[in-house]
Formats: sequence, C-alpha cells, structure tokens
Amino acid sequence: MSRGEVNQLTGPSMFIGLNGDDLISFGSGQPDLPPPENVFKVLPNFTSFKYGPIQGQRHLMEALALEHHVPPENVVITNGASEAIDLCFSTLLKPGDMVLLTKPYYYAYPRLVEINKGVPTYTRLVKGKIDLDDFRKAVEGCKAVLVNSPGNPTGSVQSPKTLSEVEKMCNDLKVYLIFDEVYCNLIYEGEHYSPRGEYVVNVNSFSKTFAMCGLRVGYLYSENEEFIKAIVDQKTYKSMNTSILSQEMAFEALKAPKSFITHHLEVWRKRRDLIYNGLLDLGFDLWKPEGAFYVFPRVDNPRKMVWDLYKRYKVITYLGEWFGVEDRIRLSYALDARKIEEGLERIRQYLSGS
Amino acid sequence: MSRGEVNQLTGPSMFIGLNGDDLISFGSGQPDLPPPENVFKVLPNFTSFKYGPIQGQRHLMEALALEHHVPPENVVITNGASEAIDLCFSTLLKPGDMVLLTKPYYYAYPRLVEINKGVPTYTRLVKGKIDLDDFRKAVEGCKAVLVNSPGNPTGSVQSPKTLSEVEKMCNDLKVYLIFDEVYCNLIYEGEHYSPRGEYVVNVNSFSKTFAMCGLRVGYLYSENEEFIKAIVDQKTYKSMNTSILSQEMAFEALKAPKSFITHHLEVWRKRRDLIYNGLLDLGFDLWKPEGAFYVFPRVDNPRKMVWDLYKRYKVITYLGEWFGVEDRIRLSYALDARKIEEGLERIRQYLSGS
Repeated sequence: MSRGEVNQLTGPSMFIGLNGDDLISFGSGQPDLPPPENVFKVLPNFTSFKYGPIQGQRHLMEALALEHHVPPENVVITNGASEAIDLCFSTLLKPGDMVLLTKPYYYAYPRLVEINKGVPTYTRLVKGKIDLDDFRKAVEGCKAVLVNSPGNPTGSVQSPKTLSEVEKMCNDLKVYLIFDEVYCNLIYEGEHYSPRGEYVVNVNSFSKTFAMCGLRVGYLYSENEEFIKAIVDQKTYKSMNTSILSQEMAFEALKAPKSFITHHLEVWRKRRDLIYNGLLDLGFDLWKPEGAFYVFPRVDNPRKMVWDLYKRYKVITYLGEWFGVEDRIRLSYALDARKIEEGLERIRQYLSGS
Repeated sequence: MSRGEVNQLTGPSMFIGLNGDDLISFGSGQPDLPPPENVFKVLPNFTSFKYGPIQGQRHLMEALALEHHVPPENVVITNGASEAIDLCFSTLLKPGDMVLLTKPYYYAYPRLVEINKGVPTYTRLVKGKIDLDDFRKAVEGCKAVLVNSPGNPTGSVQSPKTLSEVEKMCNDLKVYLIFDEVYCNLIYEGEHYSPRGEYVVNVNSFSKTFAMCGLRVGYLYSENEEFIKAIVDQKTYKSMNTSILSQEMAFEALKAPKSFITHHLEVWRKRRDLIYNGLLDLGFDLWKPEGAFYVFPRVDNPRKMVWDLYKRYKVITYLGEWFGVEDRIRLSYALDARKIEEGLERIRQYLSGS
C-alpha cells in the first residue's frame, strides 16, 4: 500500500451511495429494512406540486407536536437532521463562536461548525460516555453544545442522570444545547432522555426510525419560540420547504403500528449481538453498543486496514479519524445477518493475512 | 391602517403557502400549471429509500450534462435553486467578503449573502437592465456576483451582449459569477445567454420550467471542477442527497416533449399581456416584462396598498422594498386568466376607493 493510495481515504463521502453485488458495506449508517407500508399509500394519488409553507406541512407538524409534547408552531421540518443542525449553527453562530462537541463525534459535526464560521472545541468521551467534570470545564464560553445520544459512532446511550445535568448546565449558562436524537428509537440498553428548556433544540429524523434516509425528512423542535422563528426565517432563504412528497410519506410513516418499531428493534438487537460477539471472537477491543447501529473497535494501523479491506476484500469500513479518534474504525451493522457474517469472515481472512 | 398593522408586512414568507377560496394571490412565484405527465410514472413503483450519492442521481446528472454541454461530474443536484446559491456562498465566502447584487434583487439574495457572513453590495438596474459602467465599478473588490436573467422581480431579460461582457469581466477579474437562470425557458422577448468559464457557476431548477416547486429540485453546474468538488463536500455535511423521489420525478420531467415547454410559454405570454395591459389601463407606470412571470409597477404608498389589498380585497402582492426598491410592488402572474382578471378588478376597486 503506497502513501498515494492511503491518501485516497478522504472521508465517508467517497463511499456514500456505492453499491456492488460483491461489496459488504459496514460503511454508511442507513437501515436496509423497508419503511412502513403506509408510506406507499401517498404515491398513486399525489398531485401537489406547489410550494408548501417553509416550516412544514401543517398536519405533519401537528403529528410530531403530539408525539413530542410541544406546540405545532415549535416544530420545523427539514431536509434531514443534517439541515436541522446546519440551520441551528447558521442561525446561532457569529464568526469565531465556539461550539462544544463530544469526541468521538459524528463526522459531519466539526465541518458543520466550521462551514458556519464557528470553532469546534471538544470534550473527550470516556468509553463513549460524557465525563461531566470535563464537560463542565469545556462548556465555559461556548455559544452552543451538540450532543448525540444514542451516539454515532460510539453506539453509547448517555444516562438520563448525565443528560439532565447537561440540560441544567446549558439552560443555566444560556448555552444552546442542540440534542441530536435521531437514534432515539434504537436503544437496546438503558433509557432515552430528551432534554428540554429554553436553550434546548431537539433534532430528529425519519431516516433511521422509519428507514427512509433517501427521502431526507428530518425535523427540529424547541420550547424557544423566538429561536424557531429565526430558524424558519433562515430556511426561507436557504432551501424553502422540504420536499412536499417526502413530507407526505413521512406523515404516513407516523401512522405505522408501534410493532413496526419494536419489530425493527429486535432485528437490530440480533445484528448487534452478532457483530459484537463476532468481533470479540476475532480479538478486537470494543465496548458493547447500547443503541444506534455502530461498533467502534480499536485496531492497529487503521488506515491500512480500511484500505486493504476495501480494495482486497471488498469490505467498506470507516476510519476512526473521520470521527476524531485515530486508533479505531467504525462499522455500521445496518445490513442483514448473512452479510454481517460474510463481512466478519472477510475480516478474519484479512487478519490472518490470507 | 395603524403602524402596528403595517409592521405585520414582514416579508414574503408571511404569504408563502397561504391558500383560500376567495384569495387572489399575485404573491409567490410558482406556476399553477401541472407538471409533465411523465413524472407520475415514477410513483406507483418507487421503492428506493436509501441514501443516494450526495452529488445527485447519476442518470439525472447525465441528462442535465447533455442539455447544458458539461461533463456529468460537473453537475450537482440540490434542494431547489435556493440551496444551490446557499452552497455557492457557503463555499466561497469568508466573513466580510463582498458580493455584488443587482438592485432590485430577488428577495432571498441579500439574506443569503448575510447568512453566509458576506456583505452584499449593489449595482442599480436601469428599468430592469444592467448598466455596464456602474457594474464595472461596483464589481471591483468583490468575491462574487449574483446575476439573475430573466429577472425576478423585474421580468427583464439581460441581452447576450451585456451578459457576455459580464462574463468576460468576471472571468478576467477572477470574481465568481453565480448566474441564476431558473427562468431560462420563460422568455417572451429577446434571447437567453448562458455565461460560461472557470469563474462561472450556473444555477437552474425544475420548479419553474416543469412546474414542480414543492418537490425542491434544483441544480448547479460549472466548468470549474475544483469548485464543484468543494460544493459537494459542503453538501455532504449540510443536507446530504436531495430527495431521491423528487430527483426521479425530475428525471422523468426531462423526458417531456418540447411542446410541453412551448405550450406553457404561450400560456404565460397571454397572461403577461393580460396583466401588463390591465395595469397600463389602470394607469400604472411599469415596463413590459420580457421573461419570467412578474410585473413590477411603481405605486404611491406601497405599504398601504399591499396591506389594504390583502386585508380588504383579499389580494396578495409583494412590497417592492422586499426586493430593494421602495416605490414599487411585485405581482406574479402565475395564476389563471380568470383570476388575473378578478385580481385586476379588485385592484381597480381599491384605486377607486370603493
């Protein structure tokens, strides 16, 4: 492997959307399961091609408001959770404002801060968990904090005790807490806690829970009405309404029976056990994921491993350094058990040098 | 009318998405005509819910590349033209960078510059036309220029001669020319000229030509490959792929027969003649639109007129000051002839004080 080859490992975008019969992708974090059947109901009769309200389709806002116990006016529908976070930073940050991120972080976070002319700063997670003492020091002087639980790439669920401390700190200090809870319906151990308050913005999505990433429907909500108004103002200029058709499908998805989510969760749990135990058996050092669908094992020479797995074994994995940690790699287990087994077998072959 | 009421005229977003049986909206610039029939073909069989490539669906990029004579790799599919422009500014601008806009401008432009921490500066159009002498002075020291032809709110088409001068100036000075040509298929007089070059980025959309605003499919292309790569990098973090379903419908729209566009154009031309002559008859001072679907008449006391027309006559119009000009209002004629006539009648009643 030459230096030139390694330098081709430029980031996750090089792998996004890649397909191939013989490719095993532990790369992109997207469900392979189908969305709820209801979503297809929209399709045959759809005829609405005009602009919609910037903030979102009213019936979708109302349905989400009911679920999250906020007024409908406090919900904004976005082009995925990505746009929700971009809108938060774009609205909040002046050049040079500091934003606290946990490390490891979802790879898009630092770039989103920088794109919006802010400066990322970090608090280091301990085995995927927030260290409140370090957090308390690091949050001083920040304009905003971005926390993700269940976490990508860690698979960790922050405890309600920790999150209520974080919530209190942020509201007391008037530091905006952007809370990315897109994996809130994918928790195997522990309990989800959703922070609230004047300085809290909750970010969520249909991509993971309802397996409809490609349609790009996310949303945010907050008790802070002024902030919501400022967000909608920005979205008016930056992208206007989110695709009406995608929103209508999201609305139908919400009507899916509760069993849709619980059934999916059991599928995910089996996959988690399969890959976690498989990697343990292969001798990897990793913690057991409590939520989402990622494992984050420590490896020697990660750049060589990610490159060779891709080029020689047709297995996609992501470099830990894309998430702020040099000595690990991320594997998404959003693929079926047979493929996970095949992927583990190829990793075994790589490790044994065969 | 109290001061408090007038202050409720906060901007176009207050009217976007508003509906009502008795409402005549000359507000939002969206076609009321249906999209091509082909687009519905996608719907019954759509099953693709995964993330797509950030840059766009390959077959859509290829079809647009063919139309605009650039390599497919030089096309990026976006959440409408709005996101295309946001991505340009977000990629190009450092805090304080100047961006030259024509005045009057499409209302989103100055805010998009400011949201991306740039500083808008202006060259004044003369009856809707670029004044090259003023442009030449104003462009000095700018990082980018944003030109829109056919123009919103002016309805003006800049001549090929003017635009090739602008193109040459920008490429010589290494000032990025962002050329918004979303109305390029709606020209009644004159000829469209599409600038090119290393410093030119062309922005376009399916919203106007194919009457599918709400699905939010726009795109940009450029001969500058490095710039395209930087744009795709930003989109990776800011919003990921544009809704796959919307993209598939856009792809089908491109297959519409040429007669779809020419037929629409004739409908628009009749409406233009109707509203232009109607407003002339009512004594308004305005120029004849050459493209797009807006008239921009001079009026006395525009705030009172826009407010009273809305509250007392249920007619939506937009304030000129939202487009940078105090003494005019904008009327979109994107509504059927019967409604245009009814709207003109209500304006007549307003003017006569009845």
